[in-house]
This record gives sequence, structure tokens and C-alpha cells, in this order.
Amino acid sequence: MSTTGITLEQAEVAVKAAKAKAVELGTVMNITVVDAGANLTAFARMDGAWLGSVDISQKKAKTARFFDMNTGELGKLSQPGGSLFNIEHANGGLITFPGGIPIKNADGDVIGAIGVSGSTVENDHAVAKAGAEAVQ
Amino acid sequence: MSTTGITLEQAEVAVKAAKAKAVELGTVMNITVVDAGANLTAFARMDGAWLGSVDISQKKAKTARFFDMNTGELGKLSQPGGSLFNIEHANGGLITFPGGIPIKNADGDVIGAIGVSGSTVENDHAVAKAGAEAVQ
Amino acid sequence: MSTTGITLEQAEVAVKAAKAKAVELGTVMNITVVDAGANLTAFARMDGAWLGSVDISQKKAKTARFFDMNTGELGKLSQPGGSLFNIEHANGGLITFPGGIPIKNADGDVIGAIGVSGSTVENDHAVAKAGAEAVQ
Amino acid sequence: MSTTGITLEQAEVAVKAAKAKAVELGTVMNITVVDAGANLTAFARMDGAWLGSVDISQKKAKTARFFDMNTGELGKLSQPGGSLFNIEHANGGLITFPGGIPIKNADGDVIGAIGVSGSTVENDHAVAKAGAEAVQ
Repeated sequence: MSTTGITLEQAEVAVKAAKAKAVELGTVMNITVVDAGANLTAFARMDGAWLGSVDISQKKAKTARFFDMNTGELGKLSQPGGSLFNIEHANGGLITFPGGIPIKNADGDVIGAIGVSGSTVENDHAVAKAGAEAVQ
Repeated sequence: MSTTGITLEQAEVAVKAAKAKAVELGTVMNITVVDAGANLTAFARMDGAWLGSVDISQKKAKTARFFDMNTGELGKLSQPGGSLFNIEHANGGLITFPGGIPIKNADGDVIGAIGVSGSTVENDHAVAKAGAEAVQ
Repeated sequence: MSTTGITLEQAEVAVKAAKAKAVELGTVMNITVVDAGANLTAFARMDGAWLGSVDISQKKAKTARFFDMNTGELGKLSQPGGSLFNIEHANGGLITFPGGIPIKNADGDVIGAIGVSGSTVENDHAVAKAGAEAVQ
Repeated sequence: MSTTGITLEQAEVAVKAAKAKAVELGTVMNITVVDAGANLTAFARMDGAWLGSVDISQKKAKTARFFDMNTGELGKLSQPGGSLFNIEHANGGLITFPGGIPIKNADGDVIGAIGVSGSTVENDHAVAKAGAEAVQ
């Protein structure tokens, strides 16, 4: 077996925690978990969640792992006049607003990332955070 | 037969109503209708309508269904500094200016969407609205 | 207005004739008409028709106009060992089995093409033929 | 909420049953479930499963829903000299060997599909079948 970071068991823990947080917030979400190689590991679309957010949740997760930072941080730099203006054109499309968060293990190593899309960016981030923090 | 939302008969009613509105406004339009799964259901390009608007009308229809809102609403949030800046990079390209409108049935359920492109965004929206409202 | 061959009125005549033939054959089809520039002009997906045939009907129509011949003719040449083996890789994907037919005016000039997908290639071709021949 | 076929709860039942079958067979798999609109609904990559099978499992699920048949059935027709030779070029890439199966409800309506990739096509099909049959 190749080492690619997060296990499916951990990814499913993250998805489950994210779903619980979404229910708590009264929203329906698309939830993606990628591994250390930024490859898809687990995904769930809650009933009635936006179809367009399937891809956005995946792009948020990839973006978070591609640069090992929250997607919203990258978005601050990609505005007009910013140092990374229009970085969204790279990698077949990046998403740089909040909702993507790296997932770390107990040692602080990045082992994957979670991306959430389906509501306001504040809710997306809160749900992603609940998912990321559920992984130990 | 599986249920995927709007029927072809309903979609053709929408296209016909949209064409009539375009004629009334003295414009020529590309008109797309997608179903609940955001899959193409009906399309018409009026004689002389912009070729580049074939794709735009399709992306507007998909965008409206992807997020169950008028495309122009999404565009307000995707401006520089906005919460969804550069969301247009998702889903192989979104269009977020007016002209895409969800189509609902009598119960208020989204059963598809219409996208119109070929004139000003005001005209595009007016024509899409005429099409969406013609579906019962 | 730019001259791009077939009019929307003609294209809708083709779609209507194709739908009637599909009903006669007891099938449901995706029907695409493109103009002389191989750009989408009219489209209809009959209720319950294969979702995967949306794209195939479009690729058949484009392929027929791209080479001004029935798609099935091209397919004879694209087989292993044939002179055009794997031509399907060009133009973002071609479809070379039957169901795509050029549409000609009374003078024999190609003014567009029709592509049909949803059943056997024999039925697809028969429905496309009914559509193409309905245009005068 | 709009109706798009299979629910997340049903999709997760399919994924769970597929994983159990994969364990029984001593393999590791990528498992995708799409809804009636061929949109991604649930996904799981078992630890150590081929990275290249992420996309293959998704294309198998889409292909099965696009044509409402097992992917292996389509593959019989897409061989050199077959009636659907090189159909794989449509829809941004189809996969036509076994491992994709439509998911039906109790009434026999197609409500989605499952695609499995990671082992032999016999194993892929067996795992997909276990998943599809677990949905009631």
C-alpha cells in the first residue's frame, strides 16, 4: 500500500463531522476530502445541496492542499492588484474563497484537506473546520 | 423512464415564449433549457444571433440550476473583494451576469433552468424571464 | 445578419420531422442541428432519452458538417488499419458511427447537419435522415 | 428541494455494501455513486487503491447512467468494427469496460448509478453489483 496521508477511515470521520455541523447550521453541503497527494478520497453531497458545489468543494479541497493553507488566505492575495492576481487560472481552476482547509495529523503534518461548498462562505468554512478538526 | 425534471414539451414552451419576447424587443437570442440534472434539454439560436452566445446561454442555464438562483445574483458576489470572487473558474466555466433563471413548477420545486444570451444583460434577463414564466 | 446557412425555422422543421420519425420507431432521441459553421442551431432531448447522447448527437452533427459526409462513412475509414484510424481524437472528439448527416438546400449546397443519438445506429440514422430530408 | 434521484443515505448504503464486498474479495477499490442527473453524490477510495481509478470509477458511474446499462454492455458494441466504435470519445471520456451499473428503485426506475475501479473488471463488476443491489 502506498502512503498517501489520510486514511479512508479518517476521511469518513471528517465527512461525518462536517455533515453534523451542516445539520446544526441548517444547511446542506457538498463535502470533499483529498489525501496528501491532493487526490479524491471521500465525498458526500447532502440531499438538495447545490449541484454546482460538487466541483467547488473539490477545487477548495485541492487548493487547500496545493498550497497548504486555508483557501480564504489565498483569496486575499488573488484580488486585483494583489501579488497572486488571478491565480485561479492555474491547475485547471482553483477556488480561493473560504471553505477549504488543510487536514493535519497530531504531529502537525499535512495529510490531506477538506473542501466544503453549499452555503455562505462563513458556513462553508465552519463546516470544513468541524471536519478538519475531527481528524486526529 | 427516470424523472429528471422538466419535460421536452415544457422546455419547448419556454423556448417559444422566449423567442416571442426577443422578437418583441427587436433582438436575436441564443436560448438554452436544461433539466433538473443541469443536462441540455432544448436549444434554439435565432437567425443572426451571436455565435459566442451559444456557449454563454448554456453556461447561464447551467449556472442558474447549479445554484438555484438567477445568474445575476451570483455575479453580485463574485466581484473583486466579494465573497465568491472568481467562482467562474468552477464547473468548467460559469457565467454570472444576468440571463440565467431557474424554472420552477407549480409547487415551487426547481425542475430546470433557462439561459439566454445575445443582447444586453437587461434584454437577456427579460427574455429568460418570459421563458421561465411560461412553464406551468 | 451573417450568413451561416440553415435558418432556425428550417432547423426546427428538421427537429420536428426527426421527432415524428422517432415516435414512429418507438424510440426516444437526442436531436441536434448545426449550421454551415458547425455551430449549434437547434436541439431537443425527448423525455427519457439517454443523457449520454446529448453530447453524442452534437458530435455527430459536427462531424457530419466538418467533413460533409455521413458519420458512418467516416467510421469505415477510422477502423484499425484504416486510412483515418482514430480520427476521433481530433476536434475535441468526433463520433464516426451512423446518425450524423449533412443537410443540403435545393441547390445541393451543405447548409448544416443533423446528429441523432438514442437508439441503435440504424434507428439513429433513420431519424437523422427523416430530419435532413424535411429541409427544403 | 428538487428531486434528483438517489438520496445520500441510499448512496452511502451502496458505498458501504461495495466496500464490504471488496474486503471479501481481498481488493481495494474506488467507489463512485452518481444521481439521476449523473452528478456526483458519494465517493470513497479505499486505502491503497489505484489513484488512476478515481477518475475511472467516476466515468464508469456516469457512463452507466448516461446510457442506463452496465458499462460492459456498451463495451461490447464499441470494439473495432462494432456499431459504436470509439464512442469513448464522447462526454469528455467514457469508460466502457465492466464496473459501472445503473441503480434502480423498487419500481425499476433508474435513480443513479455506481462505478467501481481498482482490480480486475470481474472484481470491479462484482463490487459494483453488491453496491447497486444494496439500494432498495
